[in-house]
Amino acid sequence: MTGTPAPFTAGDYEARMRRAADAAADAGLDGVLVAPGPDLVWLTGYRPVETERLTVLVLRPGQDPVLVVPTLEAPDAAAAAPTLALRDWTDGKDPYEATGALLAGSGRFGVSDNTWALHLLGLQKRLPDTRYVALTEALPMLRGVKDAAELDRLAAAGAAADATYEEIRKVPFAGRRETDVAADVAALLRQFGHSQVDFTIVASGPNGANPHHEAGDRVIERGDMVVLDFGGLKHGYGSDTSRTVHVGEPDDEERAVHDIVREAQEAGFRAVRPGAACQDVDRAARAVITEAGYGEYFIHRTGHGIGVTTHEPPYMIEGEELPLVPGMCFSVEPGIYLPGRFGVRIEDIVTVTEDGGRRLNTTSRELVIVD
Amino acid sequence: MTGTPAPFTAGDYEARMRRAADAAADAGLDGVLVAPGPDLVWLTGYRPVETERLTVLVLRPGQDPVLVVPTLEAPDAAAAAPTLALRDWTDGKDPYEATGALLAGSGRFGVSDNTWALHLLGLQKRLPDTRYVALTEALPMLRGVKDAAELDRLAAAGAAADATYEEIRKVPFAGRRETDVAADVAALLRQFGHSQVDFTIVASGPNGANPHHEAGDRVIERGDMVVLDFGGLKHGYGSDTSRTVHVGEPDDEERAVHDIVREAQEAGFRAVRPGAACQDVDRAARAVITEAGYGEYFIHRTGHGIGVTTHEPPYMIEGEELPLVPGMCFSVEPGIYLPGRFGVRIEDIVTVTEDGGRRLNTTSRELVIVD
Repeated sequence: MTGTPAPFTAGDYEARMRRAADAAADAGLDGVLVAPGPDLVWLTGYRPVETERLTVLVLRPGQDPVLVVPTLEAPDAAAAAPTLALRDWTDGKDPYEATGALLAGSGRFGVSDNTWALHLLGLQKRLPDTRYVALTEALPMLRGVKDAAELDRLAAAGAAADATYEEIRKVPFAGRRETDVAADVAALLRQFGHSQVDFTIVASGPNGANPHHEAGDRVIERGDMVVLDFGGLKHGYGSDTSRTVHVGEPDDEERAVHDIVREAQEAGFRAVRPGAACQDVDRAARAVITEAGYGEYFIHRTGHGIGVTTHEPPYMIEGEELPLVPGMCFSVEPGIYLPGRFGVRIEDIVTVTEDGGRRLNTTSRELVIVD
Repeated sequence: MTGTPAPFTAGDYEARMRRAADAAADAGLDGVLVAPGPDLVWLTGYRPVETERLTVLVLRPGQDPVLVVPTLEAPDAAAAAPTLALRDWTDGKDPYEATGALLAGSGRFGVSDNTWALHLLGLQKRLPDTRYVALTEALPMLRGVKDAAELDRLAAAGAAADATYEEIRKVPFAGRRETDVAADVAALLRQFGHSQVDFTIVASGPNGANPHHEAGDRVIERGDMVVLDFGGLKHGYGSDTSRTVHVGEPDDEERAVHDIVREAQEAGFRAVRPGAACQDVDRAARAVITEAGYGEYFIHRTGHGIGVTTHEPPYMIEGEELPLVPGMCFSVEPGIYLPGRFGVRIEDIVTVTEDGGRRLNTTSRELVIVD
């Protein structure tokens, strides 16, 4: 949990690429196309920015991986992924033709979710007989089951987020703007080793009723509920935790709503075990809130996967029948949002173990009073 | 050029959306689909992050625009674009069905380049009779011709980049890491009003031969050529300028190569006039370098458009026959890259006027000696 983990090796990346190609074959795909983004980072360690110039990794079962890159980015690609075969294309040439030559002109390929439509349409036009399917639809669990080295990183990121929460409880809230507290949260995440801060939600009073409110100019007052939800990347893996605090003494309803969310979060956590479906986690958490009469105020799914991104499959949502498997990591984060009044959300990252779930966030889920 | 410009109004955005719908009709499209990103910012002022949850603006000729949004982001969307009709969808529902209801099940739609493949494939699956084309292919000039308020912003961003160059010439180079100088560049851009710094290339000695080298650990030495290329956003519009400096006295070849690039940049600039094709700008700059015997070392296109992003159509590249129109803004940035030795690039943003071109970067293009 401390110190810098050993970097992933070329061998690690080769194993992941083989796993992806094998999974593609098992799913009846002829291969996988991976654009810049989290899939490419996970598979190769190379992290270019996606642009109008096509970069795409082509994985085909039984063949060596090939990375199609713009000529002027080839040196960076070679430095980042020295053992990977590159096929470069120069400004003015047709990159879809170069890619098409690797696809054999037909078949069915998984394509990473965040691939630009520009590039997918370019391939569809060049190769009208080739079919494409979104990677998370075809291989939802490609990155879903974490290995020991990944779990260590996720646990370290979670511990850093927990340390951030322990410290942020001590700062003054009343009389400061949400953005001031958010800046404290960001500084703490970095202090505890995050290289990237992705979100620092400080949603006070009525702002808490908007689940995606970030942090604004509102001055926090005594009597406010405040939803805190923050995360980012540490050693390349994500953190994401929420706690709801109260500035001064809460009233009975605030306490009651917080209790319901806490019980819902506990129920969701207890539903985590190998073989349960993702939707079972959602149902377990939602049932508590619905039975308490607040069902219409729980307006989002219960959770999302986490890994090299802070939002990825699997999703804990009604209709998702994917079975839980040891090594999966995802959030369990029910909430109640009362428009114009306040909101409560409690969130831990949970990993599936052989006999249930293990929380990667372990700070108190009781309602904490801040100043 | 100084002070904060008046913000764009709901009326400005409505006019842009109407223009886009009309342009779609003229191009034989049934509408335009716009995902989060620069097109959506330009059309509505709303800037969410693209995620696995579909957000898409639907523009159809003769109909009111509709923004499809996840329910939990609807409050943010309403705050950012208060006059826009929203159609929200809740976790667990099919957002492609909700969008499809707005498309009438057939026809041909432009789709913003950076739309995720996940979403395009979702629409293609739900609406198999609807056809899609990349927005920059269908309407390459949708954002290409800037109005007076946009030109003011681009000029202000260019002036801030120029002020940054005037200051960075004075800092010590020899004995410092590229990353140290890059940090100075970033601080100066912010000091001169940039809200976002997108790139700070400091490519010294042999690193200059890689056009996309950013900045690394290399310690800059006396005798190095150093390519500086930086930009970002000021008041929502982009800057992007390059100058190549020399640490101490250059030798004859370095001076000669710099002269060739300077002449090529001048030739590209002089080719800018209404009615010329984009490729004419590339050809004019390239001819100078080719005639001087360095053609094989100019390994990228001559320029790219700039606006609410730092890379957008039109592209100054062989094969691009789009005619230049007053109000277009783009870079003119030829370079020579000598592998293992050094590189030179000189770049100004140029806008097309009624009778030629006007540079938005006006610092000296002579080879400057730094310490």
